[in-house]
Amino acid sequence: MRHLLSAADLDRDQALTILETATQMHDVQHREVKKLPALRGRTVVNLFFEDSTRTRSSFEIAGKWLSADVINISAKGSSVSKGESLRDTVTTVAAMGVDGLVIRHHASGAPAQVADWVDAIVVNAGDGTHEHPTQALLDAYSISRRIGDLAGKHVVIAGDLTHSRVVRSNLLLLKTLGAQVTLVAPPTLMPSGIGAWSEAAGFATTYDFDAVLPDADAVMMLRVQKERMTGGYFPTPREYTVGYGLTRERLKLLPPNAVIAHPGPMNRGLEITADAADEARSLILDQVSAGVAVRMSVLYHLLGGAQ
Amino acid sequence: MRHLLSAADLDRDQALTILETATQMHDVQHREVKKLPALRGRTVVNLFFEDSTRTRSSFEIAGKWLSADVINISAKGSSVSKGESLRDTVTTVAAMGVDGLVIRHHASGAPAQVADWVDAIVVNAGDGTHEHPTQALLDAYSISRRIGDLAGKHVVIAGDLTHSRVVRSNLLLLKTLGAQVTLVAPPTLMPSGIGAWSEAAGFATTYDFDAVLPDADAVMMLRVQKERMTGGYFPTPREYTVGYGLTRERLKLLPPNAVIAHPGPMNRGLEITADAADEARSLILDQVSAGVAVRMSVLYHLLGGAQ
Amino acid sequence: MRHLLSAADLDRDQALTILETATQMHDVQHREVKKLPALRGRTVVNLFFEDSTRTRSSFEIAGKWLSADVINISAKGSSVSKGESLRDTVTTVAAMGVDGLVIRHHASGAPAQVADWVDAIVVNAGDGTHEHPTQALLDAYSISRRIGDLAGKHVVIAGDLTHSRVVRSNLLLLKTLGAQVTLVAPPTLMPSGIGAWSEAAGFATTYDFDAVLPDADAVMMLRVQKERMTGGYFPTPREYTVGYGLTRERLKLLPPNAVIAHPGPMNRGLEITADAADEARSLILDQVSAGVAVRMSVLYHLLGGAQ
Repeated sequence: MRHLLSAADLDRDQALTILETATQMHDVQHREVKKLPALRGRTVVNLFFEDSTRTRSSFEIAGKWLSADVINISAKGSSVSKGESLRDTVTTVAAMGVDGLVIRHHASGAPAQVADWVDAIVVNAGDGTHEHPTQALLDAYSISRRIGDLAGKHVVIAGDLTHSRVVRSNLLLLKTLGAQVTLVAPPTLMPSGIGAWSEAAGFATTYDFDAVLPDADAVMMLRVQKERMTGGYFPTPREYTVGYGLTRERLKLLPPNAVIAHPGPMNRGLEITADAADEARSLILDQVSAGVAVRMSVLYHLLGGAQ
Repeated sequence: MRHLLSAADLDRDQALTILETATQMHDVQHREVKKLPALRGRTVVNLFFEDSTRTRSSFEIAGKWLSADVINISAKGSSVSKGESLRDTVTTVAAMGVDGLVIRHHASGAPAQVADWVDAIVVNAGDGTHEHPTQALLDAYSISRRIGDLAGKHVVIAGDLTHSRVVRSNLLLLKTLGAQVTLVAPPTLMPSGIGAWSEAAGFATTYDFDAVLPDADAVMMLRVQKERMTGGYFPTPREYTVGYGLTRERLKLLPPNAVIAHPGPMNRGLEITADAADEARSLILDQVSAGVAVRMSVLYHLLGGAQ
Repeated sequence: MRHLLSAADLDRDQALTILETATQMHDVQHREVKKLPALRGRTVVNLFFEDSTRTRSSFEIAGKWLSADVINISAKGSSVSKGESLRDTVTTVAAMGVDGLVIRHHASGAPAQVADWVDAIVVNAGDGTHEHPTQALLDAYSISRRIGDLAGKHVVIAGDLTHSRVVRSNLLLLKTLGAQVTLVAPPTLMPSGIGAWSEAAGFATTYDFDAVLPDADAVMMLRVQKERMTGGYFPTPREYTVGYGLTRERLKLLPPNAVIAHPGPMNRGLEITADAADEARSLILDQVSAGVAVRMSVLYHLLGGAQ
């Protein structure tokens, strides 16, 4: 593995290695001196064509704790908007002597293209509605830390499957790790035709959230993009909450040892109620903390290996 | 003292300790190698919900000179604007493993709320028109370096008392340090009802700037928020300068050993003339320099103590 | 040389020294651990009154590889826009204890003014259409690395001479280094009156690009500011490409050993075709890489000297 572009880049052994290293990195986070020398003298650029404060900050902290030099470039309003091509932009940035490019882009597939053009290693930090592999890794890390090995566990992913940038990465990684996955969405937010290939790909789909909760080991709630929830084809916020929100009533359907994940930022009261967000089974802040550890692990494996 | 939310958090001994440490930190600033190892491996986030280039830069330099990792997050246009609550935003940032949060927020009291929610130490870098304690510390530092112990000294604070974010912190700290304080403002910029409690709180108020200048050891000019100076209730800029600007004529009323402070950015020609800003009694650039030293001292005491 | 404000600040020996040091710095770029201790404990501020992602990133990387603390300040929307004067802004920034100010400003001459006001060393990172001396140094570095000593070599600079911020610096430095320079532009983009002093200054001008190409050792293409190319006095994009673009046909006129430079970002298909940009004679990515090395050299000579 030279880049991390998709959760599919990782076979089971590689995924487990990254998660295992993340455990060690996570310990650093609880030290007083949060600093490892592993990437001293390496330069990582966060090249964000789209804003994402939390993902950028998480990668920035991960790089700095590994002693890398981290440079943030917000590509909105930079030479890109002067009509320069993506290729010219990224080869220019890479030519400065960059070792790692962490890329967020609104276009699906952009990071994979970039990886063809540059010598630097490339980490996909979210490309359109396509993939966000470090999010999948941190989700898997947080869940397995609480409920153990994911092999054979039942993970329910519920929400706006059509617009989510994380569901594909999660699905791929969870299958690699041997989990059983059920996708839940209202009919108008279920990707069309997904049923046709779900069986072959080894996951289930349903519109009935209540039916699958009693059998879940973990439920991953997706963020609703409220701005896309208007119009006749989408449920109203109220309808959404009633049908697909993780409400106090649904919490009772969830087994006591099951856990709750959400990639944030949450719409409290829409896809998740405060009861669910803040209860002991919720992993939400654990996920944030795990994000730094997982990204340290990814940067370490991709950039530290040659040392 | 676990956080620095208000100048009232500091008793006299604590305030003097911070100012004393700032003296040592100030020496670092004049070294060729401006770097202390005190906070190596500690992570400080500048979480600014409002722009303030100079305050952010000052904290960033202070943190870096102490060898901390410093992350800047401009919360304008980040997940906050996606409807996430302040609580979710700050607990998320803190969960990344942050040791110190330096917060600027437009709402009075926000940093104090944040301090209840996170384990990180919190420094208030300005909350609405409420407090800005490190500004008060740097003002006290600069003034006392020039005129000595502030106990018994007469400090005049003049200007737009209603909209200033620094006057309350200054008043609190100056009283703690034993100074005698007089507040000066035009009637429409004097907080209503302030006279009723000024006597109990031990400071004087007046509309007559000229009357108090001959007796001042230091005069602190406040920035006029020009955009709020329109309308029938406020003086025109010309009226303001005539009545409350530190003009060449008023400089003659000020004793030769008295000093002049201003938090910047100045409106030259409005609340302060170039004569006043640039003369030897002016502390304005000293204050900027002191700002870094005082913030190093605050970060050191709040974050370095446990080491 | 205390500051680098203009390419004219450098005599031949100084220019050659900076280029020679850049060669050594360039080696760092190809190391695994890109880090020199030279500027540890020094603080460099990138003070940009105008956006320029690539120039800012290049200086940021240069400073960090030399172990300096680097602070980015985007002065757009900061206190400047609150009506503070340039002088107050820069003296404030400098008063924080800054050793080096790297300044980008839309007004020609601003960095030179700043140098009069502050103790910090000042590097001009582009002032209006006036100068951009580190761009000239990186161009000279890249070209001479490929074709050897520039003394006696013929360099053709072609494009929008009127609006370019780099042409003046290039002209000055190339003359210092002993190159023979020809400036090429369409009549409406040739600075008026330039012919009158070109002979005295020792360079040639022409409207005929094709005539000078066969005799060129290097051709530097300038970026067309498309937004300024509208209106009756300017060529249309199509006319521009036909008359002054580096097209496949013109490439045949260029000697096989001649090289092609462009400061980026390129308008592919306008002033330069993909054939020209991507062929072996093109230095375009070399220039980017050289940019970091040259800026390390400049910062090292200006800031490291006193150590």
